[in-house]
Amino acid sequence: MTGAFGSDHPIGVAVLGMGNVGAEVVRIILNNAEDLRQRVGAPLVLRGVAVRRLDIDRGIPAELLTTDARALVTRDDVDLVVEVMGGIDPARELIGAALNAGKSVVTANKALLADYTGELAAAAENSRADLYFEAAVAGAIPVVRPLIQSLSGDRVNRVVGIVNGTTNFILSAMDETGADYGQMLADAQRLGYAEADPTADVEGYDAAAKAAILASLAFHTRVTAADVYREGISKITAEDLETAAAVGCTVKLLAICERVPGQPSADEGGKDRISVRVYPALIPRKHPLSAVTGAFNAVVVEAENAGRLMFYGQGAGGAPTASAVMGDLVMAARNKFFGGRAPGESVYAELPIAPIGDTPTRYHVNLQVADRTGVLQAVAGEFAQHGVSISTVRQEGSDAGARLVVVTHHASESALADTVAALAELESVTSVTSVLRLEGTEE
Amino acid sequence: MTGAFGSDHPIGVAVLGMGNVGAEVVRIILNNAEDLRQRVGAPLVLRGVAVRRLDIDRGIPAELLTTDARALVTRDDVDLVVEVMGGIDPARELIGAALNAGKSVVTANKALLADYTGELAAAAENSRADLYFEAAVAGAIPVVRPLIQSLSGDRVNRVVGIVNGTTNFILSAMDETGADYGQMLADAQRLGYAEADPTADVEGYDAAAKAAILASLAFHTRVTAADVYREGISKITAEDLETAAAVGCTVKLLAICERVPGQPSADEGGKDRISVRVYPALIPRKHPLSAVTGAFNAVVVEAENAGRLMFYGQGAGGAPTASAVMGDLVMAARNKFFGGRAPGESVYAELPIAPIGDTPTRYHVNLQVADRTGVLQAVAGEFAQHGVSISTVRQEGSDAGARLVVVTHHASESALADTVAALAELESVTSVTSVLRLEGTEE
Repeated sequence: MTGAFGSDHPIGVAVLGMGNVGAEVVRIILNNAEDLRQRVGAPLVLRGVAVRRLDIDRGIPAELLTTDARALVTRDDVDLVVEVMGGIDPARELIGAALNAGKSVVTANKALLADYTGELAAAAENSRADLYFEAAVAGAIPVVRPLIQSLSGDRVNRVVGIVNGTTNFILSAMDETGADYGQMLADAQRLGYAEADPTADVEGYDAAAKAAILASLAFHTRVTAADVYREGISKITAEDLETAAAVGCTVKLLAICERVPGQPSADEGGKDRISVRVYPALIPRKHPLSAVTGAFNAVVVEAENAGRLMFYGQGAGGAPTASAVMGDLVMAARNKFFGGRAPGESVYAELPIAPIGDTPTRYHVNLQVADRTGVLQAVAGEFAQHGVSISTVRQEGSDAGARLVVVTHHASESALADTVAALAELESVTSVTSVLRLEGTEE
Repeated sequence: MTGAFGSDHPIGVAVLGMGNVGAEVVRIILNNAEDLRQRVGAPLVLRGVAVRRLDIDRGIPAELLTTDARALVTRDDVDLVVEVMGGIDPARELIGAALNAGKSVVTANKALLADYTGELAAAAENSRADLYFEAAVAGAIPVVRPLIQSLSGDRVNRVVGIVNGTTNFILSAMDETGADYGQMLADAQRLGYAEADPTADVEGYDAAAKAAILASLAFHTRVTAADVYREGISKITAEDLETAAAVGCTVKLLAICERVPGQPSADEGGKDRISVRVYPALIPRKHPLSAVTGAFNAVVVEAENAGRLMFYGQGAGGAPTASAVMGDLVMAARNKFFGGRAPGESVYAELPIAPIGDTPTRYHVNLQVADRTGVLQAVAGEFAQHGVSISTVRQEGSDAGARLVVVTHHASESALADTVAALAELESVTSVTSVLRLEGTEE
């Protein structure tokens, strides 16, 4: 079967950016031409690669390189544009121009998608082009396509993922070695797992962008980075990991997208809400995400009929990310050839975002207290007074008095914050050493 | 955007079979009409359900039920057919009739696909209809779509999966309890995890059908059940699991699809070959598949650029399998509505099947030997003489002499078989207690 193109008519590809991912995409297009031709139905031909500088030998014919990305994306012989340059500008404008000119776009740009999917999807819809972005979340791991397609007949209730390799590398190393955050960040930087300015990773911005994308897909609702509650890992201490280990847990930076069932009496008339949040949390060592160490990523999806699914693999790196880009590229090329279309943005559900204060989680509260009778009673009293139910308490003697570790049942963040404020006022409490959320338990 | 249909024009669905999966599919179509309409772009309307008997109350309007499946699949108001009746006949003929009439088909029928994908895909191609089958392998776990689409720009080298829940339940229970095969099979039957006639599961036929499907997709080559080397678990003993545990392993029924790199000097002119096999094997407890217990399934895919991916979830059951069916149904309905097409069969690579005798694996050989000096030397001599290199030997005293456990490096099945035959002839070897393959190690 042939479509809009004859079977010898090549499909032209432009690549924007030739960093780690772009270089791998270019290599695969050039080296695997015959396999790609068979899988698409027509040859994929690289028309050009937009780079910032022409004076670097990139191992490909010089005539393929250009600094004029704007001209490249609208060339007549370009049908598909791969954007792997990253950042908002000029990627946003270039993708828009490509889509407006009817070119389909494959992008790995999570920061852009987290804020501008609506704008880009509308441009794609107007010109009947495709916008694919499997590589934007969790690198090589297929999770975008399963959410959009495989689970399109199910109802997703929760997506929980380890979607940032840098922070997972640091937390895994802290867990294994007992070293503190600063040391392991330095290690990660030396090994190339963290950037010189690590803010986007360690403060959770990268994970928050991915959480926004995952939540949008899971709940058929437009979620942007601003809707995501975010805390990073820079305040996690060696002692936090030690305390976690003592209760059979480890600490992971989690991206959590959750359906919060509507209450018939509530303002929203009983409509479900969604909670999207990124923060470091304790998870039990028997939870499947706890075994995801180093720079690996994993995403757990819980759906009404499918139950719990888990997807695991390499979440970053040139070749793994290029694998996801190439899968999208082949599908976009097939659509050009056979006349199909990728599913567009689906935001019909328009579920409201639940504020973090309304989102109940369990907490793990670590207190330094005076070593005398009556302290436990006083502490327990504050929890009870603020409506926070205690699950377990563990008391340990120490040089400077005693340590109390309180694990709560589900409580709202506001109730917990009030409790912590009140505890800090107690004469018998020396300090509230740490407050960490606990995720991944059954109750 | 609207396609061949107006946006109020319903898309008609026929369901063949109302067992566990069919009943869930029908429930979802009837109960989730609004979500499905939003996701498809047009209403999905259930036109009828083909059943064998009309005299059972199935909780849906009686006028939806029919025993005339043949008439149902070709009705003018049916656009999509879901086949969840199972078995070769009459499913094969009904799916063929539906496809010939231009209806797209979603099926969960692994036995049928393992033998007749070629025939069915050709019928789909001829009438420009879709054939979807995510539910045929590993229930709710998206693995078919990732292989066909997400990895379409990559080169898959290996797929290893636990794809049969019945045998995994039995082996996990044997591992946990130390009980023997017969006892755990009876348990599985009592709990509904195994059928009264368990042959298809325990002898590996079900896993072999799934292996054929996975290999076809992974290697762009038509692989049928007859191409799959198959051994079941009915000969696995409590002692096998005990021996496995002693060397830090457990026993799993694995479906293995492997690219065997071509040798330039070989008959096939250096072309890669593929090995597809199902058998129980030892795997190390630290291997991710070893943690997959009970009725769960998992599939590990290794690709050149993506690296190692793992997909995990519920591999069977009404609702999980229905989730996969519904995802396919929504995508097939969208194609009807927007005019797209599912990727067809891709068999261009036509890689030859490597015979099992040529497929090197590691072996774990358990021998009962006389307890006297010189035995180890004699045994080692037989391995050496047949070109099978030994990795480790462990000797244990026992009442009836001594036990030798030999773990080999990679060896061909024929070399190993010759070794075992020779060992059995040795005067100092009382018996070859068991020979099990070892998978999932690095070397």
